[in-house]
Amino acid sequence: MMFPTILLAIDDAELSSELLSELSAFDDIKVCLPDDADANNAHMAACWHPDQALLTTFPNIQCLHSAAAGVDHLGKPLLKSGLPVARIVDPDQKQGMLEYVLWCVLNHHRDFDRALSHQSQQRWHLYPQVSASAVRVGVMGLGEIGGYVALGLAQFGYRLAGWSRSPKSIDGVDIFAGQSELVPFLERTDVLINLLPLNESTQGILNQSLFKTLPKGASIINAGRGGHLIESDLIDALKEGWLRRAILDVFTSEPLPVDHPLWTTEGVIVTPHMASSSAANVIAKQLRENVLRFNNGEPLLNKVEPF
Amino acid sequence: MMFPTILLAIDDAELSSELLSELSAFDDIKVCLPDDADANNAHMAACWHPDQALLTTFPNIQCLHSAAAGVDHLGKPLLKSGLPVARIVDPDQKQGMLEYVLWCVLNHHRDFDRALSHQSQQRWHLYPQVSASAVRVGVMGLGEIGGYVALGLAQFGYRLAGWSRSPKSIDGVDIFAGQSELVPFLERTDVLINLLPLNESTQGILNQSLFKTLPKGASIINAGRGGHLIESDLIDALKEGWLRRAILDVFTSEPLPVDHPLWTTEGVIVTPHMASSSAANVIAKQLRENVLRFNNGEPLLNKVEPF
Repeated sequence: MMFPTILLAIDDAELSSELLSELSAFDDIKVCLPDDADANNAHMAACWHPDQALLTTFPNIQCLHSAAAGVDHLGKPLLKSGLPVARIVDPDQKQGMLEYVLWCVLNHHRDFDRALSHQSQQRWHLYPQVSASAVRVGVMGLGEIGGYVALGLAQFGYRLAGWSRSPKSIDGVDIFAGQSELVPFLERTDVLINLLPLNESTQGILNQSLFKTLPKGASIINAGRGGHLIESDLIDALKEGWLRRAILDVFTSEPLPVDHPLWTTEGVIVTPHMASSSAANVIAKQLRENVLRFNNGEPLLNKVEPF
Repeated sequence: MMFPTILLAIDDAELSSELLSELSAFDDIKVCLPDDADANNAHMAACWHPDQALLTTFPNIQCLHSAAAGVDHLGKPLLKSGLPVARIVDPDQKQGMLEYVLWCVLNHHRDFDRALSHQSQQRWHLYPQVSASAVRVGVMGLGEIGGYVALGLAQFGYRLAGWSRSPKSIDGVDIFAGQSELVPFLERTDVLINLLPLNESTQGILNQSLFKTLPKGASIINAGRGGHLIESDLIDALKEGWLRRAILDVFTSEPLPVDHPLWTTEGVIVTPHMASSSAANVIAKQLRENVLRFNNGEPLLNKVEPF
């Protein structure tokens, strides 16, 4: 009998080793690394920033599986290879993202950012308390994670809008869809949260023109990808006082290099891509389920159309 | 006809002026300041840090009303005068406190405190993500506000315990009651939130012995009163690394003096008594309702027994 086999194409030593250990524990599948003798038997590759020569080196790969929620890290050639692409969908990861974003929204709404900055000057200053229902939060990207975050923030009392490529329906969230509704969405948004997937049409979307469409004093949160943001435009918008604050969890180069200006730009909070991740055992379980499905000719779970 | 009259004994110019304006708008009551000619007609005093000679100067006062949720600011002589004491109970204030405390709990749980501290060193370090259900939050004080906060945090997924003088019942919250259960409550608490009323039995309760009963690495949040905290004990517990962080919203002297060591103690976040307040129109509405009730011989709403 030929076991369904997963090739680990994971450019992260810790994650690779955790997945190897988790997947090895299943007795109905096999797992291998690129250097293993039987790597050529694999039909599915589990990917995190995989080698772009993957399909040349391993021509038997017939299916690509992201080891995360996003698929942009597979790179354009692989995403355009025509092979089916699936990804991880994890309720705990959605909750983790909501936790991250809620801290960020509260940080703006309840003036913790100002309190922290005043503390460094030993300055006591109280701002009038504002109701959550008066804070206009906007979520860009209403997929599995963005939709969950928008719903959770609305349930917590914020005035929510969401923007996505195609119209959605989420309780308590005003929906804006498509390029034509981006401007009205931004104009009504005090705290902007980016959770878009990164692709050709969203690359660099957080730019000067977007910032200037937000009301003066708005804050932005980027928990999507570093490629969504034009960093120099952000630094300018903060320096001139148009934006109040930016909380950034993702960067074009991670870890963010020690000498990168974002570390020290006033108004920027840098977090180390910590917003949300899936536990290795959760990823492994979904990889196993999909490799069994692929082997049996059944439809993959959580398949995506990246373009 | 003799109008029910409220005397404003409010040691806060802005609040006093707002309440004067709000209460003057009602046509079935009167409002006066201590210097007004008709101040002696008032039977009820609305108080915020009132003059301790209040009852000598105005012997017709028969009822004391806090202009806030707490009553400790009335001072012991007034609280022990035997006059009935009432206070403000405001749903928006409870929600404001939940918002404040949730930011503080997320700050510990999701390592934002560490991220902020690492940013100042341009250091990228990712901690493993922990589920909210693994974070043991403990709320001291389960009155109107504390009970609401404990329930809200439990609903958000945290592992909640609450401690109060007498047993309570709150969905999803393990209840500890009385002095004998304080130690087991503290021993299971990673993030301690103080929302107790300040009185003789709670004065100085946040002290070295309490800190040492918490597990090493715990954080504390004081949104009760400054008098609950022994500041030098806190500074010691942070300096020796027993406590991870303290978020303090209340102080024995407010505004916190510019040269106070808490401003600059590592691990302390100072916020300017901003956790939660009621809007003047909400306070005014409740004062009016109670002065009418008092005048009609009906029971006061939100009466408290301060000792």
